[in-house]
Amino acid sequence: MAAKTYNNFTVSRPQEWIAHVEINRPEKLNAFTEEMWTTLPTVFDDLSEDPTVRAIVFSGAGEKAFSAGLDLAAASVPGSFFNPEPEDVADAARFAARVRRFAYKFQDCVSSIERCEKPVICVLHGVSIGMAIDISVCADLRICTSDVSFSVKEVDVGIASDVSTLTRLPKVVGSYAWVKDVCLTARTFGAEEALRVGFVNSIFPSKATAVQEAMRVAGVMASKSPVAIQAIKEFLDWSRDHDVATGLKYTAVYNAAAVNTKDVPTAMAALRARKVPRFEKL
Amino acid sequence: MAAKTYNNFTVSRPQEWIAHVEINRPEKLNAFTEEMWTTLPTVFDDLSEDPTVRAIVFSGAGEKAFSAGLDLAAASVPGSFFNPEPEDVADAARFAARVRRFAYKFQDCVSSIERCEKPVICVLHGVSIGMAIDISVCADLRICTSDVSFSVKEVDVGIASDVSTLTRLPKVVGSYAWVKDVCLTARTFGAEEALRVGFVNSIFPSKATAVQEAMRVAGVMASKSPVAIQAIKEFLDWSRDHDVATGLKYTAVYNAAAVNTKDVPTAMAALRARKVPRFEKL
Amino acid sequence: MAAKTYNNFTVSRPQEWIAHVEINRPEKLNAFTEEMWTTLPTVFDDLSEDPTVRAIVFSGAGEKAFSAGLDLAAASVPGSFFNPEPEDVADAARFAARVRRFAYKFQDCVSSIERCEKPVICVLHGVSIGMAIDISVCADLRICTSDVSFSVKEVDVGIASDVSTLTRLPKVVGSYAWVKDVCLTARTFGAEEALRVGFVNSIFPSKATAVQEAMRVAGVMASKSPVAIQAIKEFLDWSRDHDVATGLKYTAVYNAAAVNTKDVPTAMAALRARKVPRFEKL
Amino acid sequence: MAAKTYNNFTVSRPQEWIAHVEINRPEKLNAFTEEMWTTLPTVFDDLSEDPTVRAIVFSGAGEKAFSAGLDLAAASVPGSFFNPEPEDVADAARFAARVRRFAYKFQDCVSSIERCEKPVICVLHGVSIGMAIDISVCADLRICTSDVSFSVKEVDVGIASDVSTLTRLPKVVGSYAWVKDVCLTARTFGAEEALRVGFVNSIFPSKATAVQEAMRVAGVMASKSPVAIQAIKEFLDWSRDHDVATGLKYTAVYNAAAVNTKDVPTAMAALRARKVPRFEKL
Amino acid sequence: MAAKTYNNFTVSRPQEWIAHVEINRPEKLNAFTEEMWTTLPTVFDDLSEDPTVRAIVFSGAGEKAFSAGLDLAAASVPGSFFNPEPEDVADAARFAARVRRFAYKFQDCVSSIERCEKPVICVLHGVSIGMAIDISVCADLRICTSDVSFSVKEVDVGIASDVSTLTRLPKVVGSYAWVKDVCLTARTFGAEEALRVGFVNSIFPSKATAVQEAMRVAGVMASKSPVAIQAIKEFLDWSRDHDVATGLKYTAVYNAAAVNTKDVPTAMAALRARKVPRFEKL
Amino acid sequence: MAAKTYNNFTVSRPQEWIAHVEINRPEKLNAFTEEMWTTLPTVFDDLSEDPTVRAIVFSGAGEKAFSAGLDLAAASVPGSFFNPEPEDVADAARFAARVRRFAYKFQDCVSSIERCEKPVICVLHGVSIGMAIDISVCADLRICTSDVSFSVKEVDVGIASDVSTLTRLPKVVGSYAWVKDVCLTARTFGAEEALRVGFVNSIFPSKATAVQEAMRVAGVMASKSPVAIQAIKEFLDWSRDHDVATGLKYTAVYNAAAVNTKDVPTAMAALRARKVPRFEKL
Repeated sequence: MAAKTYNNFTVSRPQEWIAHVEINRPEKLNAFTEEMWTTLPTVFDDLSEDPTVRAIVFSGAGEKAFSAGLDLAAASVPGSFFNPEPEDVADAARFAARVRRFAYKFQDCVSSIERCEKPVICVLHGVSIGMAIDISVCADLRICTSDVSFSVKEVDVGIASDVSTLTRLPKVVGSYAWVKDVCLTARTFGAEEALRVGFVNSIFPSKATAVQEAMRVAGVMASKSPVAIQAIKEFLDWSRDHDVATGLKYTAVYNAAAVNTKDVPTAMAALRARKVPRFEKL
Repeated sequence: MAAKTYNNFTVSRPQEWIAHVEINRPEKLNAFTEEMWTTLPTVFDDLSEDPTVRAIVFSGAGEKAFSAGLDLAAASVPGSFFNPEPEDVADAARFAARVRRFAYKFQDCVSSIERCEKPVICVLHGVSIGMAIDISVCADLRICTSDVSFSVKEVDVGIASDVSTLTRLPKVVGSYAWVKDVCLTARTFGAEEALRVGFVNSIFPSKATAVQEAMRVAGVMASKSPVAIQAIKEFLDWSRDHDVATGLKYTAVYNAAAVNTKDVPTAMAALRARKVPRFEKL
Repeated sequence: MAAKTYNNFTVSRPQEWIAHVEINRPEKLNAFTEEMWTTLPTVFDDLSEDPTVRAIVFSGAGEKAFSAGLDLAAASVPGSFFNPEPEDVADAARFAARVRRFAYKFQDCVSSIERCEKPVICVLHGVSIGMAIDISVCADLRICTSDVSFSVKEVDVGIASDVSTLTRLPKVVGSYAWVKDVCLTARTFGAEEALRVGFVNSIFPSKATAVQEAMRVAGVMASKSPVAIQAIKEFLDWSRDHDVATGLKYTAVYNAAAVNTKDVPTAMAALRARKVPRFEKL
Repeated sequence: MAAKTYNNFTVSRPQEWIAHVEINRPEKLNAFTEEMWTTLPTVFDDLSEDPTVRAIVFSGAGEKAFSAGLDLAAASVPGSFFNPEPEDVADAARFAARVRRFAYKFQDCVSSIERCEKPVICVLHGVSIGMAIDISVCADLRICTSDVSFSVKEVDVGIASDVSTLTRLPKVVGSYAWVKDVCLTARTFGAEEALRVGFVNSIFPSKATAVQEAMRVAGVMASKSPVAIQAIKEFLDWSRDHDVATGLKYTAVYNAAAVNTKDVPTAMAALRARKVPRFEKL
Repeated sequence: MAAKTYNNFTVSRPQEWIAHVEINRPEKLNAFTEEMWTTLPTVFDDLSEDPTVRAIVFSGAGEKAFSAGLDLAAASVPGSFFNPEPEDVADAARFAARVRRFAYKFQDCVSSIERCEKPVICVLHGVSIGMAIDISVCADLRICTSDVSFSVKEVDVGIASDVSTLTRLPKVVGSYAWVKDVCLTARTFGAEEALRVGFVNSIFPSKATAVQEAMRVAGVMASKSPVAIQAIKEFLDWSRDHDVATGLKYTAVYNAAAVNTKDVPTAMAALRARKVPRFEKL
Repeated sequence: MAAKTYNNFTVSRPQEWIAHVEINRPEKLNAFTEEMWTTLPTVFDDLSEDPTVRAIVFSGAGEKAFSAGLDLAAASVPGSFFNPEPEDVADAARFAARVRRFAYKFQDCVSSIERCEKPVICVLHGVSIGMAIDISVCADLRICTSDVSFSVKEVDVGIASDVSTLTRLPKVVGSYAWVKDVCLTARTFGAEEALRVGFVNSIFPSKATAVQEAMRVAGVMASKSPVAIQAIKEFLDWSRDHDVATGLKYTAVYNAAAVNTKDVPTAMAALRARKVPRFEKL
C-alpha cells in the first residue's frame, strides 16, 4: 500500500508492523499550526485501523526540537481565537460558546493519539514544551534525550486552556507535588528529573539513539499477539479512569471475545518451542 | 489594609502578592487545639478571597517543629470527644451521630487549605507528625528541611479517624506500597525518603533556607497571570478526582470564561518583549 | 486452635497474632493449578475473620520462586478453558458466556487477598512472574530479594485476560509510562527497578532475610490497635477508588463506630507511659 | 428554650418534636432577597442539630404564594451581580471568578435544606415559581394545594444560573421528557400534573388543609426512632448519587454504629405491645 | 436432571425453560429465618448457571403472604445480632465490626437475585412487607395482586439496616418524593398506588391469575434468544449504575462476543418466516 | 443561506429559528440503511452550529411510520456485519475487534442527536420500532400520535447490540420494572402507556396535529434566550450522568461565562414591559 502523505507529518514504515510518524516542520522547531493539530486525528485514526501496523514511534524532525508547542505567531492573527476583534467578545457568553467548541475540537484532535488502538512511543528531544507535553502524555511510552528541555507553558501565556496536560499529567506521574510545581511555575526541567519522577521511561544520549531504542521497543511489541497488545493498552487506560471493581468487570467482558483467537495456541506453541511466534493481522 | 490577627497564627506580607502564615505556638511544638483548627478556615478563606494575595507560604514558628499534631492533652479533658463520660457513650448510635458531626467539621476545617483559591506552599521542619501530615497533603507544594521527622500517627493513638491523610496521601505519592507501610506502622521517615517517593518537592539544610526557597517559588507563581494560576490549581485538583473525559470537559467549560481576559495579551506581549508582565488583581 | 490445613498452602503461626502463608509446590516453582487458586479465598477468608490474626506474611516455599504463575501445562488439557474443543467454541457467544463466568470466579479468588481485613505482606523471591504479580498487587506491602525476577506475562501467552495486574498495577505505582512498558513488552525487571518505581517497599539479600523483615513489620502492625489497623487498610483501599470528598465522608461514617473502643484509652495510656499497649482480639 | 428569631422567617413549634418554618414576607409574595437566602442555612443548620426537632414543615406566609422566587427588583440594583457596572465586566475572566464565588455561596445556602439531618416537608401553595422550585427539590416531601402554580423560570430571565433545580429535578421525577419540557419552556404547570409526574406527594384543597397534612406526616415521622429516620434520609440521598454496590457498602458501614442503640429494643417492644414507642433525643 | 431441593423453598419446572421458586413457609407468612436468607444464593446461583432455565417466577406459598419479612422472633434470640448480650456490645467498635460482616453477608444473599443471569419475575400477594420489598427490588419485573399490602418497615423496628430496599428503591421508581414518603413513614400502600408510581408492572385479581401472567411473560422471554435476553438484563442493570458514555462503551465491548452466535441467523430466519425460533441452551 | 440537502433526509425551515428534519424514505417505512445513519451526524452537527437555528423538530415522512428501524434486508447482504462470511468469523477475537469499531461508530452517529446543542423535539407516529426508539431517547421531548406503535426490538433479532436504547431508556422513564418488561419481551406498546410511564410528553390525534404541537413548543423555546436554552439542555444531560455535588459545581463554572450576556438585560426588560424579547444569534 502506498503510504498516505500529510502536510507537516511524515509517516514511514521503517520495518514490518511499525510506523514512524515525524512532525516535519523543523524550520519552526516543529511548532503546531491549527492545520497541523487538525491533521493529527487523520494520521492516528488511519494508523489505528491499519492492520499492518502494530506499534508507532512518534518523533520530531530536525535536531533542535520535538516541538516548541503551539505556533503563537500563527495563532495570534487578528480575528483568531487568541486575538479576537472587539466585536467577537462584545457578548461574553457568545464568545464563551465559541471558546468551548474550539476547545472540544482541539482536545479531541490531541486525544486521537491516546485513542489510537496501537501503542505509541514518543521520542522527545531538544525543545519539548507546551503542546509537546500535551501530546506526549497521550502516548504510551516516553523516551527522551539527555539534552531535552521540558516545560508546561500555560501560565506563561496567561491562559490555563487545557488541551491535555493539566488533565492527564496528574495521572501519568506519581508525585502530585511535582506536578503542581511544574504546572504552576512553568519552570524548565530536564531528562534526569523527568526520569526520577517517572515522566519518561529512559534517557539516551542523542536523538538517533533514542529513536533506535523506540524502534527496538516497538519491535518487541510488534512481535507479540496484536489481540493481546491492543487489549492491554485499552485495559490500562480504562483502569486509570475507573475503580478496581469496574476495571475487573470490564476486562472480563472484553476478554470473553478476545481470548477466542488462534493467537493463544500460536503463542503457547512458540513458548514451548522457544521460537518467535507469528500472528495474523489485526 | 491592616492585616487581620488570629490566635496562634501569624499572617504577614513579606512581599507584594505573597502571604506568610505561621502556626505560632512554638512552646507546645505548634500542637493544635480545637480552637486552632477551627481558626484554619478563617485564615485561609480570608486569603482565598483577598485579591492582593497570589501565593501563600505556610510554616511553623520556632526551630523545633512545624507541628507535633493534635494537642492530645487538650483533646482529652473529661467529657471531650476523646475522653467521653460514660453517659456520652451510653447509646452508641447517638454517640456515633456526635462523632460524625465532629468529624465533618474537623475535616472541613483542614480542607479549607486545599479549597483556598491561591497556591499554598508548606514548609515542614523538625517534628512534623500526625495533623502536620493532614495539613501538608492539603497544600500544593511541600518543601522540607533535612532534619524533618515525619510520622502518620493514627495507629499510635488507637484510632483511624481520618481528618485528611488517609484519604489524600494515596493520591499524593505514587507508591501505594509505601503509603500502606507508613500508615500501618506509624514509623518515622525523613527528608530523603520523602523526596524519593515524591512526598516533598525539595530539601533544604535549615528552616531559614527552606522558607527562603518557598518565598522564591511563591514569587514565581505571583509573577504569573492570577487567572491562569488559579485555574490551574483548580484543574489539577479536579483531574485528581475525575476521569480524563470529565477532566477535559470541565477545563473547556471553565476556560470559556477564563481566556477572555487582558492577562492573555499582557502575557504574550511580555513574552515577545522578554519583560516581566504585570497583571491586575484577582 | 489446631491450624487448618490446605492442599499446596502451608499456614503457620510463627508468633502471636501473625500468620504465615506459604505457597507450597516448590517442585513446580509454586505454579498455580486451578485447585490452588480456588483455594486462595478459603485460606484468606479464614484468616480475615480469625480474631487471633492481626497481620499475614505471604511467601513461596523453596529457594527458586515465589511463583512461576499459572501452571500452563495443567491449564491446557484438552477441553479446558485454555484449550477448548471445537464444539466448545462453535458458538462464540456461548463460549464467551463461559469465559465471563470463569474470569469472574478467577478474579474473585485472587481478590480475596485484597479483601482480607488484615494487612498482607508479600515476600517475593526468585521467579515471580505472571500470576505472582496478580497476587502481589493484592497485598498491602511487597518485600523482595535482590535476586527476584519479575515479569507481567500476559502478552507472552497471547491473551490479555486480566486476573488482577492490569487493573491494579496502574494504581500501585506512580509512573504510568513504566506500567505500560512492562505490561506491553513482558520484559523482565529486577529488584532495584522495582524499588525505584515504588513497586516494592524494600530489598533484602536472601529469602530468609526478606521473610525476617516481613515478620518484623508484621510484628509492628500486630502491636497496634486492630481496630485502627483494619480501618486504615479499608480507608486506603477506599480512597484509591473514590474521589476525596467521598473518601472523607466514608471515613467519618466508618469511624462513628470505630472510635468508640477501649483501644483509644489503652493506646493513649501506653503513649504516656511509653509502654507497649495490649489490645483485645478483633 | 426560647426560639431563635430570624428576619423574614418565622420558626415555631406547633407540637413536640416538630418545627414549622414559614417564609414571612407575604407582601412581596415571599420573594427572596439576598439577605433572605443567606439566612436559610442559619435556620436549617440550627434545626439540623437541635435534638428536640425530628421533622420540619416548611411553608410560606399569606394566602397568595409559597414564594414568587428571587426578588428581581432587589437583585438588580446597579453594581449588583445581576446589573453590573461596566467596570465590573471589563475583564470577563475576573467577572467570571466573581460569578463562581457568588454561585457557590448561593447554591450552598439552598442546599442547607437538603443537608438538614431531619426530614423536611415542603407545603407549596399559590405562586410557587423560580426559587420556590429550587427550594422544594431540596425538601424530602412536597405537598401542594390545588391552586398552586409552578414554573421553572430560568429561561424567562435569560440566564441558566442553576441554584438547585436544573441539577436536582432530573433526579426527583421519573419522566426526563417532562423535565426538559418544563425547564426549556418555563411554562406554568399545576397540581394535577405535578402529582401525575411524581413531583408532589399529594394535593389538598387549601393551604390550611395542606399544612395540616404536612403536620400529620411530620408527626408520624417524629413518632419513629430518630436514629432510624435520620439514617434513612441520609441513605436515600446517598443512593440517589451512587451506584448500588457503593450504596450497599455505605449503609452497612453506617449501620455498624447506628444499630447499636436502645431504640431497637424500644421499637421492638412497642411492636409486640402494639403501643407507641418513646425514643430519646437525637 | 432431578431437581435439587432446598429447605423452605420449592423449585419446580412448570414448563420448558422456566423455573418456579416458591418461598415455602406459609404457616409463618413466609417470614425469613437466617437459614432461609442464606439459602437464597444457593437457589439463585444454581438457576443462574443452569442452561435449561431461561426465566424464573418467584412467588410465596399460601394465600396470605408473599412474605411478612424477617422473622423477628427468630432473629431476636438472646446473643443474636438483634438481641446481643451486654458483653457483645461492651466494645462498640468490635460490635461494629461484627455488624459490618453480618450486613455484607445479608446484602450479598439478597443481591443473588439481582445477580442471577436469568430474568426474575416476582409475584407479590397479600402481606408483602419488610424483606419482601428488599427481595422484590432485586427482581426484574413485579406483578401483584389487588389485595397486596406493601410496607417498607425499617423505621418500625428502630433500625435503618439496609439489606436492599433503601439503596435500590430510589432507582426503581421515578418519584423520589414518594420513595421518601413510604420509607420515612413505613405506611402501608396497595396495588393501585404501586402501579401508579411504577413500582409494579401490573395487577391481577388473585394470586393464581398473577402467577399465570408471570408464567406467560416468562414464556415470552424464554422464547427469545437467551444470548440476547441475558445481555439485555446485564446492560439495563449496568446502565442504571453508570453514565451514558460508560454504558454505551460497555455494551459495545460486551456485544463484540455476543453477536457472534447462531441465534442471530436463527432469529432473523424466524422473523422472515413468521415462525417461532428455537435457540440452543445457554 | 441555501439549505443543504441530504440523501433520505429533508431539512426545511418552516419558520424563523426552527429547523424541521424529516426522515424521507416513506416507501420503506423510513427504515435506516447504513448510509442513512452515517448521515445523521452530518445533519445534526450542521444544525448544532448553525446560529440561525434554535430548536429542531424531527419527524418521519409519510403516514405509516416514523421509522421501522434498521433496514434488515440491506443490513444482511453477505459479507456485511450482520451476515459475515465464514472467514470473517474464523478468528472470534479479530471479528470482535471489527464489531467494536462498528458499534462505536453506530453509537456515535445516533448520539449526534443528543450532542446537538439545540433542543430536539421528536414526533413519533405509526410504526416506531427498533432504531426509532434508539433515536427518540436522544431527543429532548417526544410527542406522539394516538396510533403510534412502539417496540424495543433487540430480542427479536437475537442480538442485544445497543445503539442507544438499552443505555438511555432506564434514565428516560421512572419505572425500571416497565423498562425491563418492554426490553425483555419486545412487546408492542401504545401512546397511552407511553404517556403514563413518562416516555412521551403528549399525544395528538394525527401526525399533522402532532407536528403542529411540536412546532408550537419549538417556537416557545426559540423565543427564549439561546444562551439560556443551550445551557439548560447541557445542564440537564450533565445532571442525569453525575451526582448532585458535581452537577452544582459544573453549572456554576459554566455560568461564570454564560451570565455575562446582553440576553439578561434584554430578557429582564421584556419581563417588565410584558413584551416578547428579541435575542441575538448563537
